[in-house]
Amino acid sequence: MTQAQTGFDLDNSIDVLSRTPGSIRALLDGLGENWIRGNEGGETFSPFDVVGHLIDGEETDWIPRARIVLARGANPTFEPYDRFRHLERNKGRSLGSLLEEFERLRAENLDVLRSWQLSANDLDLPANHPRLGQVSLSQLLAAWVVHDLGHIAQISRVMAKQYRDAVGPWVPFLPVLTDHESPRS
Amino acid sequence: MTQAQTGFDLDNSIDVLSRTPGSIRALLDGLGENWIRGNEGGETFSPFDVVGHLIDGEETDWIPRARIVLARGANPTFEPYDRFRHLERNKGRSLGSLLEEFERLRAENLDVLRSWQLSANDLDLPANHPRLGQVSLSQLLAAWVVHDLGHIAQISRVMAKQYRDAVGPWVPFLPVLTDHESPRS
Repeated sequence: MTQAQTGFDLDNSIDVLSRTPGSIRALLDGLGENWIRGNEGGETFSPFDVVGHLIDGEETDWIPRARIVLARGANPTFEPYDRFRHLERNKGRSLGSLLEEFERLRAENLDVLRSWQLSANDLDLPANHPRLGQVSLSQLLAAWVVHDLGHIAQISRVMAKQYRDAVGPWVPFLPVLTDHESPRS
Repeated sequence: MTQAQTGFDLDNSIDVLSRTPGSIRALLDGLGENWIRGNEGGETFSPFDVVGHLIDGEETDWIPRARIVLARGANPTFEPYDRFRHLERNKGRSLGSLLEEFERLRAENLDVLRSWQLSANDLDLPANHPRLGQVSLSQLLAAWVVHDLGHIAQISRVMAKQYRDAVGPWVPFLPVLTDHESPRS
């Protein structure tokens, strides 16, 4: 099969979004601290940080922004999003408590999303993104899905890099080890 | 915390390897065909293909190569590995049956690995890789771990790209959408 892009589909999106807490739990819950706290250098995120960042998204980004769109105001505009809110917020927390919190918030937010019973017209409603300009509700929800998947990929990549030295000469056959050598997310 | 590389640890490696089937099941089991069969163009792998490739690894790569090392022959040399064996092998199969097969093979292989009770000396045993030259058993096992994590990252990335158009102007804020624009794995 060749590359096939998929148009936005609300039910499929909710399906993918509902899997993320379980996928991350399967990857991380109970792992050693080296794997949970290692990052890619500088201000890049460790797997622990990624879970905190996803919690921030539940509390301050996706559903709050969807509410702004659905309020149908004269000039709906999103608040800027703080990518580093979690660093202070989650000091001293355990990964297990973050995973539980993320699961709970995600389940609540998907209940809200389902309760709206969004129509095709609703999904076309516009808003202003502070840096990207005009966007639609469906684009916001698609970005939520992609954001999840990007961060699952990031968790796997950051974990893989903890073994960059341990693989010895295998580095050129394991491209994940040289992805994002300059941080991109 | 800054970037910290982790030395090879057998128990931690087995822990990570044991999680992979469950992580992939959480991501994929029961998802729609668009998400399972879409790829990144050309001969790149879909999530379905990745699971087939991981099964090939269980049958022909990691443990078979470890057996070659542990046989302590005069000039232990690995067989070349066929990255496309799964394409013929799994025609007509369902994703569910591949996930079950992968889970079973991985569990059996980790039982074998545990049964060897490898010492530090065992882990230093050498072999010849057909293209990489001399490698050690610990490097082979570390490469197995990284290979898993790279393919989990790939599954998430390939899924994310199915929504590249659907996110509209969000593309520059979602770097997973522009990772591996030229196939690297």
